[in-house]
Amino acid sequence: MSAVDVASMLSCPVPIEQYPTVLLAHGGGGRLMHQLIERMIVPAFANPALAVRHDAALLPVPTSHVAFTTDSYVVRPIEFPGGDIASLAVFGTVNDLAMCGARPLYLSVGFILEEGLPMETLWRIVQSMRRCADEAGVWLVTGDTKVVDHGSGDGIFINTAGIGLIEHDLTIEPRSVRVGDAVILSGDIGRHGVAILAAREGLELETAVESDCAPLATTVLALLDAGIEVHCLRDLTRGGLGSALIEISEAGGVRIAVDDVAIAVNESVQGVCEILGFDPLYLANEGRFVAFVPAEQAELACAIIDAHGAGTRSAIIGRVDRGEPLVTMLSSIGATRIVEMMSGEQLPRIC
Amino acid sequence: MSAVDVASMLSCPVPIEQYPTVLLAHGGGGRLMHQLIERMIVPAFANPALAVRHDAALLPVPTSHVAFTTDSYVVRPIEFPGGDIASLAVFGTVNDLAMCGARPLYLSVGFILEEGLPMETLWRIVQSMRRCADEAGVWLVTGDTKVVDHGSGDGIFINTAGIGLIEHDLTIEPRSVRVGDAVILSGDIGRHGVAILAAREGLELETAVESDCAPLATTVLALLDAGIEVHCLRDLTRGGLGSALIEISEAGGVRIAVDDVAIAVNESVQGVCEILGFDPLYLANEGRFVAFVPAEQAELACAIIDAHGAGTRSAIIGRVDRGEPLVTMLSSIGATRIVEMMSGEQLPRIC
Repeated sequence: MSAVDVASMLSCPVPIEQYPTVLLAHGGGGRLMHQLIERMIVPAFANPALAVRHDAALLPVPTSHVAFTTDSYVVRPIEFPGGDIASLAVFGTVNDLAMCGARPLYLSVGFILEEGLPMETLWRIVQSMRRCADEAGVWLVTGDTKVVDHGSGDGIFINTAGIGLIEHDLTIEPRSVRVGDAVILSGDIGRHGVAILAAREGLELETAVESDCAPLATTVLALLDAGIEVHCLRDLTRGGLGSALIEISEAGGVRIAVDDVAIAVNESVQGVCEILGFDPLYLANEGRFVAFVPAEQAELACAIIDAHGAGTRSAIIGRVDRGEPLVTMLSSIGATRIVEMMSGEQLPRIC
Repeated sequence: MSAVDVASMLSCPVPIEQYPTVLLAHGGGGRLMHQLIERMIVPAFANPALAVRHDAALLPVPTSHVAFTTDSYVVRPIEFPGGDIASLAVFGTVNDLAMCGARPLYLSVGFILEEGLPMETLWRIVQSMRRCADEAGVWLVTGDTKVVDHGSGDGIFINTAGIGLIEHDLTIEPRSVRVGDAVILSGDIGRHGVAILAAREGLELETAVESDCAPLATTVLALLDAGIEVHCLRDLTRGGLGSALIEISEAGGVRIAVDDVAIAVNESVQGVCEILGFDPLYLANEGRFVAFVPAEQAELACAIIDAHGAGTRSAIIGRVDRGEPLVTMLSSIGATRIVEMMSGEQLPRIC
């Protein structure tokens, strides 16, 4: 389906005067389910792999090593400044592949819909998924739709799984991190968490905060193409920067020292955190990552990230030191503290 | 992890006196989520691909063509005679791969848990998934856990996506079906639908009906190994045999004539259908499939299926005729009727 065809499908392709909301029968295997899939979902996601109606998609895989990942998305509300559940579901899984240095190629999508979901809402989300897949350069090649009775779900949950190609010889993982590596943060932190919070609670912020939700694969592949010897990558989703650093420290058996002053936080995000008592270090992001690279390549890596970034600046926020696995943070007044794993839930259902 | 290790983990590895139920924080990205994943899920599913804690699993793929599929599972109740949501989630996705003639290799798993789910229940389901993965010969290589607030989910939903290898040169799809092909049904129909119904409604059947839930890949690969020129395969899940035949007829542009008398239905299943007004033709199955093969290979195919089957007998139930896409059924009294797509929902949430 060409862009023109998609543009011509602006009205909901399921007759909404007849079916204003999703019914249990839309997941039941019968006529209504086929109508939903054939009229709405398959045309919206159209690609050669999807054209063959089958239980699975058959895919050419031109390398012998692939990356495979999955995530479910249960964000509330499903639409928020800077994104929606569809952009999270596409970019989130694309980013998990990118964090292995993989080139994202194929996505599966599983919808769990609640009976009573407005059909127009589903259509908006399906269209958004298609746009995001186009932006990220992936195909949605196979899928599934289930409907649960009213009260047993929450509008719409989406699972995506993704396949990406490994086209490099690096071993990008926490165990590859080396003493002396620079720690690069790709941009400012906390936007996604605050955007969700503001949308959910109806907060009126002086300057609206948009989610940083964005695909990261192009940036990562540019780092690899430029010969940056990337040791480890991690996107900063649930648990934020703090949790990501602790996970890498523990899994890699390395000590990480970061400098609070180097970590950018948008003024509105900082304001919300101060008022509500959140720590931006643990707020979720959907378009930020940390990269561990040899110190001598750090400046070049930052320049490449900024050339592909969304207006925000990357920074070298720390280094890998000798010592027991631990994450330490140097504050603006020169004090050093240990960064602890966030206990409990800072903000539920942010992705 | 060896079988011995699994056996030694019979008690729940998360301290249930402290955490008797799943909390929102078990999905929040912090300490509790890590405890759940590190203590329960990773050890239960242990394999080399899972050992590297990463956003995606890195997998060797020794062929250039793979099959990729996904399904979400929302069955109620989550445990029923002959299976549970875990066996559906593993075997269902394995079977979707098998229906392309693919050798199932890797599965992803995404849990959407409802706050308040008993931790023991989750542990039982995780253990069951591991056993089923072992039985089906697949690895659970990557996963995700989300928790939604009480009332926004229904205990446990599971999504699995699967990757399988295509090791043959056949094009197994509806468009490969040819006039003259025999239609083979791999066993009796309707068990899964009735097992779910009985468990849900507390029906007391004279003879308990167990779900037919089972992995089908070994059987399909045996057909291919024996040189059966398989034209099309389809497992009979939501919508049952009737919907599967109509889908193949429409997608392949072929007329299919089946013989009601050749379609096996267990006596208890038949009894429940007669009392409650269900048609076994549309009842869900989780371990049955139809195969379209050249007529001269049909007897051999049946023998191979029966050698790998679970005690039930396969049968040649029809043939592909010339004519417009349509499915016709010859009744026991010699009348022919058109098999229609089931309209609406026969039984919700059966998988």
